[in-house]
Amino acid sequence: MLICTLIDVDIPRDMPPDERAALIEKEAAISKEMQEAGKLAHIWRVAGRWANVSVWNVKDNDDFHQTIGSFPMFSYLKVTVIPLSQHPNSIR
Amino acid sequence: MLICTLIDVDIPRDMPPDERAALIEKEAAISKEMQEAGKLAHIWRVAGRWANVSVWNVKDNDDFHQTIGSFPMFSYLKVTVIPLSQHPNSIR
Amino acid sequence: MLICTLIDVDIPRDMPPDERAALIEKEAAISKEMQEAGKLAHIWRVAGRWANVSVWNVKDNDDFHQTIGSFPMFSYLKVTVIPLSQHPNSIR
Amino acid sequence: MLICTLIDVDIPRDMPPDERAALIEKEAAISKEMQEAGKLAHIWRVAGRWANVSVWNVKDNDDFHQTIGSFPMFSYLKVTVIPLSQHPNSIR
Amino acid sequence: MLICTLIDVDIPRDMPPDERAALIEKEAAISKEMQEAGKLAHIWRVAGRWANVSVWNVKDNDDFHQTIGSFPMFSYLKVTVIPLSQHPNSIR
Amino acid sequence: MLICTLIDVDIPRDMPPDERAALIEKEAAISKEMQEAGKLAHIWRVAGRWANVSVWNVKDNDDFHQTIGSFPMFSYLKVTVIPLSQHPNSIR
Amino acid sequence: MLICTLIDVDIPRDMPPDERAALIEKEAAISKEMQEAGKLAHIWRVAGRWANVSVWNVKDNDDFHQTIGSFPMFSYLKVTVIPLSQHPNSIR
Amino acid sequence: MLICTLIDVDIPRDMPPDERAALIEKEAAISKEMQEAGKLAHIWRVAGRWANVSVWNVKDNDDFHQTIGSFPMFSYLKVTVIPLSQHPNSIR
Amino acid sequence: MLICTLIDVDIPRDMPPDERAALIEKEAAISKEMQEAGKLAHIWRVAGRWANVSVWNVKDNDDFHQTIGSFPMFSYLKVTVIPLSQHPNSIR
Amino acid sequence: MLICTLIDVDIPRDMPPDERAALIEKEAAISKEMQEAGKLAHIWRVAGRWANVSVWNVKDNDDFHQTIGSFPMFSYLKVTVIPLSQHPNSIR
Repeated sequence: MLICTLIDVDIPRDMPPDERAALIEKEAAISKEMQEAGKLAHIWRVAGRWANVSVWNVKDNDDFHQTIGSFPMFSYLKVTVIPLSQHPNSIR
Repeated sequence: MLICTLIDVDIPRDMPPDERAALIEKEAAISKEMQEAGKLAHIWRVAGRWANVSVWNVKDNDDFHQTIGSFPMFSYLKVTVIPLSQHPNSIR
Repeated sequence: MLICTLIDVDIPRDMPPDERAALIEKEAAISKEMQEAGKLAHIWRVAGRWANVSVWNVKDNDDFHQTIGSFPMFSYLKVTVIPLSQHPNSIR
Repeated sequence: MLICTLIDVDIPRDMPPDERAALIEKEAAISKEMQEAGKLAHIWRVAGRWANVSVWNVKDNDDFHQTIGSFPMFSYLKVTVIPLSQHPNSIR
Repeated sequence: MLICTLIDVDIPRDMPPDERAALIEKEAAISKEMQEAGKLAHIWRVAGRWANVSVWNVKDNDDFHQTIGSFPMFSYLKVTVIPLSQHPNSIR
Repeated sequence: MLICTLIDVDIPRDMPPDERAALIEKEAAISKEMQEAGKLAHIWRVAGRWANVSVWNVKDNDDFHQTIGSFPMFSYLKVTVIPLSQHPNSIR
Repeated sequence: MLICTLIDVDIPRDMPPDERAALIEKEAAISKEMQEAGKLAHIWRVAGRWANVSVWNVKDNDDFHQTIGSFPMFSYLKVTVIPLSQHPNSIR
Repeated sequence: MLICTLIDVDIPRDMPPDERAALIEKEAAISKEMQEAGKLAHIWRVAGRWANVSVWNVKDNDDFHQTIGSFPMFSYLKVTVIPLSQHPNSIR
Repeated sequence: MLICTLIDVDIPRDMPPDERAALIEKEAAISKEMQEAGKLAHIWRVAGRWANVSVWNVKDNDDFHQTIGSFPMFSYLKVTVIPLSQHPNSIR
Repeated sequence: MLICTLIDVDIPRDMPPDERAALIEKEAAISKEMQEAGKLAHIWRVAGRWANVSVWNVKDNDDFHQTIGSFPMFSYLKVTVIPLSQHPNSIR
């Protein structure tokens, strides 16, 4: 089942640089792991903003919530969720 | 270059059924043609609404405008455009 | 899997009374059928408006879209979709 | 009488971890107590966000305000209130 | 139990003048009846707009929905509902 | 002349408890005084939020601004102002 | 007492040209009359839109509502009302 | 050339009282000076909020930006700008 | 003096094709004339929508209003106006 | 390929004056460099606000994101992105 998210990232400005760098590194690691596991099907940068459009391939809403909730940056994200279904015109 | 669109479809209620059916059929034909040509990389239905999330693979903004403008339903669409770029965490 | 919807109903004012009455009757029939089948877990009227809050029990987003799309009033609904998951404090 | 709430939780980032853990624990305890007492009829997590959809079974608006106001996290909640009434199509 | 409503009135421009005049007259009659019965505790015109702020004294949300739904103009109203409870500083 | 206000209260979280308690107490005192003087005709709690709906009975807009500006919490209030006039259907 | 209004004008496109011309002419006549009577203290065109910013000099909110309600275009106006009071820095 | 502004003032709560008092005093001085010079044609308090509606008489947009930018409180203002032109119904 | 506009075009669907084609042709003629006269400094299509971003070079707000008001499509435009001034970092 | 941005600048109030002055100076340097390189085709101040309207001349969305992301103030900007394409009426 696919879910689209539009995510704005808002890391507090006063986070110490070390903590921040570590957070970004851990986020990248989890992100890659999730992509390799097929859970995070797509992730694109929104050009001009610290934001992304992502597509998740999950079993159900619980699976989605646990998956996105396991990202280290989760508490700094503003997430808009758009549940997706098969489009009649899609050739896939 | 990728562009994401969130599109709501609003075909006027008073369109004659024949015209409407023909429009939907032509839209499906163009949509499949664009997918096969690789211009329309993804199209998903937004679950619960007559809407879609699409990802376009185009040369530039002019190419995008001409591509989406060639769809028969174009004048009935409410389109939100999100330009995409490479995400640093993407494994693609 | 549960999905919450907030739905505003907007039946065109110029629909002939017969057509309108038939539509409302068919909607009620489908609604009761879906409740008995367990697909529509809850439906409440929003007090003071022609609107409802509903909770759907579906297999996935495709199932949800097909279910809500089969309601006769579907094209007259303005639907906000909120995907639900298990709450850690819930005793259910 | 039923009332639906859409609640976003916003605990300040600078709350000491101990205080935060204690707050979450107390919230869970009150939440379960209210569910057992039948005041909090449903509570669901909004998938992808720290938010919930809840349905309250209260005597009247005063009862509702006192009930939700007694939750330890009340001052950190952004609450949207939707009063519910019986839906004509409901089979309950 | 008190409920506040902010109501904008939007009677279709193409309603025949006779029908319109009759509607306004019936609305006034029901409004006065409801005030005399104590169900409509207050009704004020929003200065500068065809709109009103009203306060309803009802048994519960079902009573409120039936009360406001019995007004002849109900289907032409855009209603915002604000449930009220006792204010700790009120001297009433 | 009547004016309706919808007021959200936002006292800073880091205000010392003593200062906060004193502020709330002074606010209550002024509020009661204004009610007894007939300037604050109604004050209701918005159920589920730290907010209120109030109705002011003032000479004119200057009188209103001076009255509401004299409340100790004024600088912490987010105020929406709705000027009221006589409703043709009101029996008062 | 002063009141500021931001007014967008929306005359229906299908109004017969004669009716429309007569309406605009009557509006201009009333507008000038109100300015000469001192009730309409200022009226400016919002550059680039069919809209205006106006300042009314009225006795109270009832007077304002009756004044603006007497304009022939009143039912085609979308009005935002901003009650004004004396500014401490004003030299008037 | 006239420009209307709707300005909300948001002085940080943690500004030291001395600094704050000095700022308000300087603002008043500049405001009066600008009124006397005819640049600030009108300034009114928005009743019930720390906000104002102002009308500026400037040579062009550069002159307007330099004028409003010279106010000591400029960096604490949230400014909405409405360019004004001659209204055909104005008697001025 | 420069003014930026963001303009959405909304030509009624029921306009006869002849009238529509003539309108579009006249609009193009005026648009080119205004560009040649230097009044319309830039006009770009918003990719994916029937909309444009334009920059106007005008004497003042009155000139701008008369200029944009002389376009044949003016009554079908939804216009957002952003007054521009010299940017300190601009090399022009 | 052209992209229009509407950018609000929000430098934190508590940034030390030295750091702030250095940031503004570096921003100006990069801005001029980008203008000279032809990447930043236009930059205008929004009159009355600390904001700008800019037009970027870039190869594609990746180029745009890298370009705007290289500005020292990038993390303090709130950016709205409007992709532009050739307008049929443009004489350029």
